[in-house]
Amino acid sequence: MSTSLRSSYKKLITRNKELIVLGSAQAIVHWDMETMMPPKAVSMRSEQLALLSSINHKMSTAPAIGKLLSTILKHPHYDTLNEVEKRNVHLIKKNYDEQTKLPTKLVAEIAKQQAITVNTWKKAKATQNYALFKPELEKLVALNKQAAAILMEVKQTKTPYDALLDIYEPKMTAEEIAKIFAELQRGLEKLLQKIENASTQPDTSVLRQSVPVEKQREIAKALVQTLDYDVSSPNAGGRIDETEHPFSTGYYDDVRITTHYHPDKWASSVFSVLHETGHALYEQGLPQEWKYQPVGSPCSLGFHESQSRLYENIIGRSSEFWTSLLPKIKNLIVPTQANLGLDKFIQAVNVVKPSKIRIEADEVTYSLHVIIRFQIERDLFADKISINELPAVWNQKYKETLGVNIENDSEGVMQDTHWASGLYGYFPTYALGNIYSGQITAKIQQEKPSWRNELAKGNLKPVKEWLTRNIYNYGNLYDPADLIKKATDKELNVKPYLQYLQEKYSKLYAF
Amino acid sequence: MSTSLRSSYKKLITRNKELIVLGSAQAIVHWDMETMMPPKAVSMRSEQLALLSSINHKMSTAPAIGKLLSTILKHPHYDTLNEVEKRNVHLIKKNYDEQTKLPTKLVAEIAKQQAITVNTWKKAKATQNYALFKPELEKLVALNKQAAAILMEVKQTKTPYDALLDIYEPKMTAEEIAKIFAELQRGLEKLLQKIENASTQPDTSVLRQSVPVEKQREIAKALVQTLDYDVSSPNAGGRIDETEHPFSTGYYDDVRITTHYHPDKWASSVFSVLHETGHALYEQGLPQEWKYQPVGSPCSLGFHESQSRLYENIIGRSSEFWTSLLPKIKNLIVPTQANLGLDKFIQAVNVVKPSKIRIEADEVTYSLHVIIRFQIERDLFADKISINELPAVWNQKYKETLGVNIENDSEGVMQDTHWASGLYGYFPTYALGNIYSGQITAKIQQEKPSWRNELAKGNLKPVKEWLTRNIYNYGNLYDPADLIKKATDKELNVKPYLQYLQEKYSKLYAF
Repeated sequence: MSTSLRSSYKKLITRNKELIVLGSAQAIVHWDMETMMPPKAVSMRSEQLALLSSINHKMSTAPAIGKLLSTILKHPHYDTLNEVEKRNVHLIKKNYDEQTKLPTKLVAEIAKQQAITVNTWKKAKATQNYALFKPELEKLVALNKQAAAILMEVKQTKTPYDALLDIYEPKMTAEEIAKIFAELQRGLEKLLQKIENASTQPDTSVLRQSVPVEKQREIAKALVQTLDYDVSSPNAGGRIDETEHPFSTGYYDDVRITTHYHPDKWASSVFSVLHETGHALYEQGLPQEWKYQPVGSPCSLGFHESQSRLYENIIGRSSEFWTSLLPKIKNLIVPTQANLGLDKFIQAVNVVKPSKIRIEADEVTYSLHVIIRFQIERDLFADKISINELPAVWNQKYKETLGVNIENDSEGVMQDTHWASGLYGYFPTYALGNIYSGQITAKIQQEKPSWRNELAKGNLKPVKEWLTRNIYNYGNLYDPADLIKKATDKELNVKPYLQYLQEKYSKLYAF
Repeated sequence: MSTSLRSSYKKLITRNKELIVLGSAQAIVHWDMETMMPPKAVSMRSEQLALLSSINHKMSTAPAIGKLLSTILKHPHYDTLNEVEKRNVHLIKKNYDEQTKLPTKLVAEIAKQQAITVNTWKKAKATQNYALFKPELEKLVALNKQAAAILMEVKQTKTPYDALLDIYEPKMTAEEIAKIFAELQRGLEKLLQKIENASTQPDTSVLRQSVPVEKQREIAKALVQTLDYDVSSPNAGGRIDETEHPFSTGYYDDVRITTHYHPDKWASSVFSVLHETGHALYEQGLPQEWKYQPVGSPCSLGFHESQSRLYENIIGRSSEFWTSLLPKIKNLIVPTQANLGLDKFIQAVNVVKPSKIRIEADEVTYSLHVIIRFQIERDLFADKISINELPAVWNQKYKETLGVNIENDSEGVMQDTHWASGLYGYFPTYALGNIYSGQITAKIQQEKPSWRNELAKGNLKPVKEWLTRNIYNYGNLYDPADLIKKATDKELNVKPYLQYLQEKYSKLYAF
């Protein structure tokens, strides 16, 4: 073979770098839409994003990539590539196979129908009109079923839904999720019952304290500073901006978080800032030497979520974290003369109460929302539920699982944008993130027993150091099942998370 | 011929629309770099911008565009295309010819050398070290001479420098510019002499008033509101942001201006906001039905500058404009109890004094700075001056023309970024803009004699209406020489501008 392995590999990485650079530019254009864009530009912006996507798709499916992959994989010296190089080749091949096997026409149809469905969802949600949403959702699901069937062939998964899961959580299957979610659900329900039977009732009046946006901005700055997410130094690699629905985005040296300051719900911005900063630290912490390589990306959405939930909840709602922080910012929350004790504060931000809306749910009931969505979308893609039946199934599951009565579909099946946005197989990663975060915390506890004492001194370095060494540093070198094993010495396992919750809430609710 | 003219034309417009949409996305990424980007991202951003440029270049030079152009231009029914369609074809062909005739290798070399030269310029300017800058500038000029020689063939211009001029001011020649600039220079020098001999000396103490940034932001909002540039309504199509060097950018429904608030130079942001708003109104005012077509763009850089200089100076430094505005904002400039009379204010913001720095120059001496740069770059591209001689030639011309002694090259030949950025043939458009703005003002005066009275009432509608009808509405349908004729019934002509200055300054300086 005349082409050298080394030169083919270099060419492949160079071509793929262009895709990464383009993707990072697309992220900026998207971020701008959500934070800065003048409202009049909405239709122009969708033209820009659609064009960039189509350029990206064309570059991703360039036959030259296929040729390089084939040269490398068939090369007699393929085995001389090191682990990182092989993983890069694997990740590029995975993306190339998926992108090329999906017909361009189908991809375009999905993109178009997605835009229509999101728009219709917005209107339907605003007017509590599922009948309006239904036909568009139906078309989008049908198109995604086609895509899933094709991806199932490419990825050799057992079901089409498994092929969708694999997009967000590589190699994860519905079977495995169902099993672990069942255990999670049992544990959460048991815990919830204990909490509901507890005599302690937290005083949550501090959450209803009105806090001006300007003061919330100051709190947010204090939070990110404590977490070592740099948004203000002359060499800062981050930003905090304001948007409707908080998100984080970016790549390596330019990672941005957003939040929404509600004057009458100050805690909302506090915990969204902690959550998004967890995501941002992961992105910023990826190995610099892997920048512009496929391995220089997070492991999976579940792992991403483990980082955000760790900072938002396990750290961000802990008594230790607020021991050092509360004295610094309490004057921003309550009038100077008012008293705001640590214990009362911690009880308030950890109040557990089954509710209808996922994004407002507490730590204990949150995963139950996710489990419901997982069960529904799995059955939807297995043709066991029709689009027609969605609201009834939804409402019934909410009644059974959370004991709440859904009164209209806007607080029910239409509450989230995911299904309107074509994100099927995405929801489970939220609860997987919780499970991973429990395993990670247990391992940190084991290796750095004083980490909570350090937290109480405002020192988050031990945590960051551990995460850097055991999670960030591995980028996308392993599939999630391997990374959790590598990082915690255990397979995916719900016990540490349930145990963490049990310990925490038995103290808070005194049972 | 089997291909129908109509379908080829449509295909051409569709392909070209992609280039326009891509360009508008590039503008957002560039805007973000100047206003929002975390500082750490600078090298990543240059990768993103370079990639987008190279994608744009590839798409601009796609052979399919050449084929469509040739089909259309040779089509027996070509003459059935209307004026707008023919102009679109002409503009696409012009761009295609230029882009395809320049070797990709040369384009890449220029881009690379440009980045190096700008960086070196920054360092050299900061350390007053022309020797550091010189070799990089020399390389960049040499590469641009190669490009100019090629473009001269394509555009069939008399000299390479004329080919560069044509990029920014189509069909304009150095010969014509030299002639009109000579007349402009004579007029300005005569006027300057009268001003310098005048006994009136304006009191400029108000300009040294310290104004907090927060108050300057309020002033800026009042200014754009008066000018009808919408940055705050629910359907706003614009923004004001902060940057090092003010600029405007954008396309149709998303046109953004930037400014810089200097606490000790409040007038700087006031006039940069007026200037950039003049640009923004032009972009926003282009015919909606021409969106995504080549004709849906401004006529030339000179015309763009005529709009910014009209709003900045002819309107923005007029007594009438401030009659209604000053009472509204003067408390933001001076302490409440202090007195700030209209006449004194107008004299201060119109003070004339030869200086070394172009961007700080007053209305009378500004064009002289531009004339000097034009003469130097014309001679540079005709090989009459070497890079070695630049500082000496510069300093001599400043002494002769403006009577100032340049003490170091940072306040001399290195003051502007244009030459480091590869913008040769660009400077003349600044003074052409002034000349056009004089002709436009004279025509507005003739057609709407009460326009200054309306200004004094805070009513800018008559001006905007005239500009919309006579400038904005024509987009890029005509070359600048034709548009100025169409709009003002006169050829390019320096007299109205000189007359405007003479009338204004004879009053202010009482001669």
